[in-house]
Order: sequence, then C-alpha cells, then structure tokens
Amino acid sequence: MDDVYAIEGGHVLTPDFEVREADVLVDREAGEVIEVGDVSADETLDATDSLVMPGLVNAHTHVAMTLLRGHADDKPLDSWLQEDIWPVEAELTPEDIRVGTELGLVEFIKNGITGFADSYFEVPEIAAATEASGLRANLCHAFITIGKDDAAARADAQEGLDIAREFDGAADGRITTALMPHSLTTAETEYLEEFVPQAREAGVPLHFHANETQNEVDPIVDAHGVRPLEYADELGMLTDDDFLAHCVHVDDREIDRLAETGASVIHCPASNMKLASGIAPIQEMLDAGVNVGLGTDGAASNNDLDLFDEIRDAAMIGKLARGDARDVAAEDAVRMAIEGSAEAIGLPVGRIEAGGTADIAVVDFDAPHLTPVHDYVSHLAYAVRGSDVRHTICDGEVLMADREIRTLDEEAVKRRASEAAAALVERAE
Amino acid sequence: MDDVYAIEGGHVLTPDFEVREADVLVDREAGEVIEVGDVSADETLDATDSLVMPGLVNAHTHVAMTLLRGHADDKPLDSWLQEDIWPVEAELTPEDIRVGTELGLVEFIKNGITGFADSYFEVPEIAAATEASGLRANLCHAFITIGKDDAAARADAQEGLDIAREFDGAADGRITTALMPHSLTTAETEYLEEFVPQAREAGVPLHFHANETQNEVDPIVDAHGVRPLEYADELGMLTDDDFLAHCVHVDDREIDRLAETGASVIHCPASNMKLASGIAPIQEMLDAGVNVGLGTDGAASNNDLDLFDEIRDAAMIGKLARGDARDVAAEDAVRMAIEGSAEAIGLPVGRIEAGGTADIAVVDFDAPHLTPVHDYVSHLAYAVRGSDVRHTICDGEVLMADREIRTLDEEAVKRRASEAAAALVERAE
Repeated sequence: MDDVYAIEGGHVLTPDFEVREADVLVDREAGEVIEVGDVSADETLDATDSLVMPGLVNAHTHVAMTLLRGHADDKPLDSWLQEDIWPVEAELTPEDIRVGTELGLVEFIKNGITGFADSYFEVPEIAAATEASGLRANLCHAFITIGKDDAAARADAQEGLDIAREFDGAADGRITTALMPHSLTTAETEYLEEFVPQAREAGVPLHFHANETQNEVDPIVDAHGVRPLEYADELGMLTDDDFLAHCVHVDDREIDRLAETGASVIHCPASNMKLASGIAPIQEMLDAGVNVGLGTDGAASNNDLDLFDEIRDAAMIGKLARGDARDVAAEDAVRMAIEGSAEAIGLPVGRIEAGGTADIAVVDFDAPHLTPVHDYVSHLAYAVRGSDVRHTICDGEVLMADREIRTLDEEAVKRRASEAAAALVERAE
Repeated sequence: MDDVYAIEGGHVLTPDFEVREADVLVDREAGEVIEVGDVSADETLDATDSLVMPGLVNAHTHVAMTLLRGHADDKPLDSWLQEDIWPVEAELTPEDIRVGTELGLVEFIKNGITGFADSYFEVPEIAAATEASGLRANLCHAFITIGKDDAAARADAQEGLDIAREFDGAADGRITTALMPHSLTTAETEYLEEFVPQAREAGVPLHFHANETQNEVDPIVDAHGVRPLEYADELGMLTDDDFLAHCVHVDDREIDRLAETGASVIHCPASNMKLASGIAPIQEMLDAGVNVGLGTDGAASNNDLDLFDEIRDAAMIGKLARGDARDVAAEDAVRMAIEGSAEAIGLPVGRIEAGGTADIAVVDFDAPHLTPVHDYVSHLAYAVRGSDVRHTICDGEVLMADREIRTLDEEAVKRRASEAAAALVERAE
C-alpha cells in the first residue's frame, strides 16, 4: 500500500456544509487529508456517485451490549434493567465483552462511524478490540457506588480512575479516556467529591448519564434542593471537556448552566423513545448555544448501531417536541453526528480539508431511495442508511472498502458473537 | 421458468407469528403457496440464514412524489404544501408521474413491499407502472372540491369515480381501486353526499385523509357541531371497507366510532413526525379493536419508502405517546405492516401457509446488525432495514432475486427520474 491515496470522482461535504465535486488526497501515515480538489494518486478509492463526508461519531454507547440485541424489548427502563439486562450482564465474561465489542465495531465500520465514546466494564478488552479495529474512541469504566459498602464503592471508582489513566493515549493516540460516574444518582456525593478532582489532575474529562428519566431528577432535588445539573455544577462536574448522556428531563436553568459551562449533551433519541424516557429539548439547547452530539446508546435499547437512524430520529422527534416542523432541521441533525459529537468527546475530527484528520465515510448516492438528489444534506438526514456507506476511513487507514472490512474478520465475529450470546442467555436463565 | 419453485433453507414467519425452519413451495401461475414444510423443486430461491415473511403492505402513499424527495424539508404542513409542493406538482406531466411512480415501485420492491394503496392524479400512468412492476395496489384519484366552482368540483369528483370504476380489477386483478375525497375539509358535504353512495354502488371502498392536523378538526366542529369522524359516519363514510390516513387528532368517541364501524386507520408515523402533525393514539386504537395499517405517505414527507422505518417508528413513538415503553410492542408494529395494512386496503395477502397468496419478502438475517438472533420479530421491528431484503415475490412472481429487480429496469428508472426531477424543479421556479 502506498503512503498516499486519492478518493476519486465524488462530491465532498465541506466544513461549511457545501457540497462540491472534488477528489481527496490522503496521507495514510500522517492520517491526514493533504488536499481537496483536482488531485490524483497511483492508489485510489472510487467515489463515483458518492458523497465523501466526515466519519460519524457515536458519542454515547455501550458497544458490547450487541450480545443483548433483541433479548428484551418493550419494557420501561427500571424493570428492563432489573429483570432482563442486569441478570445477563452479571454473567458476561471478558471474552464475551471482547466479542460483543468486536461485533459492535464491525457494525460501526459498516455504518460509517469512525469514532465513538463507550462506557462499560472490562475496558482492557474493549480497548484491545478498538485498537485492532482501527477506530478512534474515548473509553471509560462506569463506576457505581450506591448499594455497595465503602470499600467496594471506592474500589469501583478507583478502577474507573485507573482505567482512565492507563488507556489514555493508547493505540497510537486513537484511544482517549474519561472518568464515568455512572449517573448522579448511582454514584454518591462523597465519591464524586473525591474522584472528580483526580480526573481533573489526570487530564481526563467526565462522561456520565444525566437526567435520563424523572427518576434521576427527583432524588437529587429531594436530597440537595437543586436540580441535578446544578448539583453537578456545584461538584465541578460541568466543564467544556465533559459530556452528559441523555439530558431528557432538564429545565431552562439547567440548559443555561450547560451553555455557560460548555459541557456537552449527547442526545440518544432512539434509546429515549424505546425506553419511553421522553424527548430531550434539543432545539432549546441549540438555541442556547449548548453543544449537542449524538449517540446510539447500547444495542439493547435501539436495537442497532446505525447513527444515521439517530440523525433521522433527532430531526423527527425534534419536531414533535414542540409541534414545530422547523425544529432540529436536517443540517443541525447531521452536524450533531459529526462536529457536535467530535467536540463533545474530544476527537480532532470532522473537517475534510487540507490538514484535516482523515476520518471519512464515503456514501453511495446511486440508489433508488436517494434519487433524485435535490439536496445532499436532506438525504443524509432523512433517507441515507448505514448500508449506503461504501468506504470507511479512520486516521488515514481504509477500514472498509466496497463494504469489505479489512481490520476485523466480519464472518468470524458474527459466528463467535452468536455462539457467545446463546451461551450467555443460557447461563443467565 | 418452471410453474413451481421452492424457497429453500430459511425460517418462515407463520400466520401466528411463530418462526420455524421450513421451505416454501410456490405455484407461480396460481400465485399461491402450495406447501410450507420439507419440500423441494427443480427451481429454487435460496433462503439460507433468512426469514421468509409476508410481503409488507404500504397502505397510504403518493408514490410519484419520489420526484420531490428532499425538495423541501423542515416546514409545517400548510406552508410546505403551499410554498413548495403544490407549485411543483402543478408542473407535473403524465410522463413525470409515470417515472416518479416507477422510481417508487423500484424502492418498494427493494424494501420488500408487495402491495400498496396510492392516491394521486394521472392514475392511468400509475396503473400502467404498477402493472409493469408486478406489484399489487389499490389506486385512486384524489378529488378536491374546495375553492372550485361547481362544474370543476363535480368534474374532479366524477374523475375520481370514473377512475375507480375503470381500473378496479385491472392487471389480472392485482389492481383494485377506491374513491378518495381528499379530506373532510377539502371535499365538501354536497359532493360527499352525491358521490359516496355511487362508490358504494360501484363496490369500491373510500380512502381519505382524516384528522391529520388540528386544522382538519376545527373547521368540521365549527361547521357541523360534531367531531370529523362523527361527521364522516353520518355521511356513511365509515364502513369496514374504508380506510382513513393519519387520524392523529382523534378523541375517544372517534376511536369508538372507528371500532364500531370497522373502518381502518392507516398510521403514517414518519410523515406525522416530519410535518410535526403529532402522535396518533395507536395503542388506544389497538385496545379498542380498531384495525391499524401502516403507510409511508409520500417520499417528500418521509423521505424514503422503506416501510421497515415505519414499523420501527410506530413502535418508537407509540411508546412516547403515553410515556409507556410497553405500548405498541414489536409484534403489534410488525403486524400492522402485514395483516393490518392488508385488511385495511382489501388485499388477500399476509399469511404464508398452504393456499395463501404468494406475496413474500425474504429477509437476510446474516448481517452484523441482526446478530445475534434472540428474537426474529424484535429484529423486524427494531433492526431490519429495507436493504436486508434479498428476494421479493408478488402473486407468485419473483420481482427481485438477490436484490436484482426483474420487472423494472432500475438503472434506467433512476436515470430518467433524476432528469425528470431536475427539469421539473426548473420549470416550477
């Protein structure tokens, strides 16, 4: 393979969201775009009838949960977790986490996702799979203190911190980390007071679930007399490095707090619908200047990892929220999945221009459901699906060409995941 | 081609929604399933790792609107129609309707849709394209009387009736028809009183838009002192042959009226979200015993014609409507797209069993996003997308095998549609 290759014959989505005919010259070693224009190279990737766009960034997921895809549906969050998810998760081995992660990463690559933020456990397995896949990720171990004695609570938080320190900068810098207190109700105040400052010292951001359901709001208000995001701010948990998943049940003051601090929100519309959590006030956040990214959440509450679904969902339920069809317009929804997510989780990606990171998805527009093309961005929001992605590139490396994945063995991963999932459910019963 | 062929090596979705390993023997000439079990034939369609299921039925669409896909988004219904859609529709030629329809039918076949109910104009073109495609359809000319003088109003209604009479039973019975008063606010009382009885005499059902927005409710209440569906019932427009698109803004009494009369509702969740129309109370309808089918509506308010999206959307926003994750469960959503739609628009399809109509979609489950398979029906609701369909069969004929369409020239259709759409928008400007 040459050091330089050209993505030839396509249209390019520029950083200002214009679409123009251009080739893209990529420096594989540097992982960078050299030039966008009329260029050529000995090695090429064909982009005829295709849109060359920044890879999507899935800013909140639990990737190994692919093994539980379709295991239980149509149940509210609490009983779904307690009756269906946690009993099975208790049986997960490190090997299960590895193969479940690989399955999710195969899906990401197939769907043009080039970066993601994960939170789960057995992070060394997730990091190893991520390194092998060629993707870029922010990883963390989610710690929970509630219901544990002090030693167990402290040990879990310490594991979160240790993992964050150990893996930050792994995979030649493609892996960064965060500290994740699981949520403001499941990680208690004293541990937040102790560990959040240590995350700051380690230079890693916070990633946590916030205000997903009303059940995550009321206990905070009862115990502390303030709304959850005010409580989080008092604990120093809202900075422009930090990113909060969900934020469905937030009020105007909390939105202002997000805007003032620069903390990002990761909108997970499919999960919020499927678990009947509600509709996050995304247009209000955008109007207030809050940075919003998009996430699939885990496959068990989705049930796939196709971020084009979330783009569409965000635009669609964004209009339902206030009954205004102008809300969460196509371009805003697409931008969330690119620069919104990238900024939220701290990835240096999202702009196809000279010197920009070569994290790229090439989407085939030669399809009946994408004909005619009045507006490329409209199609990205409302009609493109992950299966339209032809090539996926991360950090200059071609991870998928013409839907063939080069870094992971798709057939072997599917087979091992099916076997692991069947054995897992059997053990849990 | 032989008279008999076998769909071999797959799993079959039975009429009682069980999934079992079985082959399906099809009589091409009769358009029927001969046997489901361990059978074989000289000619086969491979269904390894696949689910053999009834073809989906898209029970409310305006198929030629594919030419306007992505032409205008993120606007409320009224201004979208008046500023963006109607000016372009005024320029549509019969040839445009023909190619736009062909493009939509290509999409249907690709997405495993084997039957549909359309309402638009230039119906002879739509019928010709439908006949050529091999699909099954209920067609109608939508008539509007408001804003017209009596002669023009009457002529439009008469055209609707004439079309219904002329094309009922066309294409060897694959085409049936309906009379469509466009909506209860755009077709006025005197014309409904005159033409609805003639539809009954002609033996064709009614298909109309009802209660899509509050703007379709208030004028009826103001003018007649009753809710729209009570008004429709008084006019004899609710029978168990009739089907009403949308029904977003209906109250409990109207739901009861639907249940009592047996009239069907066609739920169009994507369109209702995109135009911010609201969420139809589908779980309440199901609980009351109302038959509910699913429709994509036109591509301009969707923006594709993949009914698997609507299945997912129906389940997803069904949970948001009352904040209950149990509502509109996976199986209910899938059944809407099969038997709900088929019953609504009067197609004799939806059961894969000996003697059943051979309208079939074969869905490939050997894909990362459908791995593992804990539950086939969950995947149909939450993870399958139209691009997973391998083979599409209607009335015994194989319309698509291994994603190659046999009845329409996909490449030529895409090319002609792109040209027609570009010329159309230019004329309208």
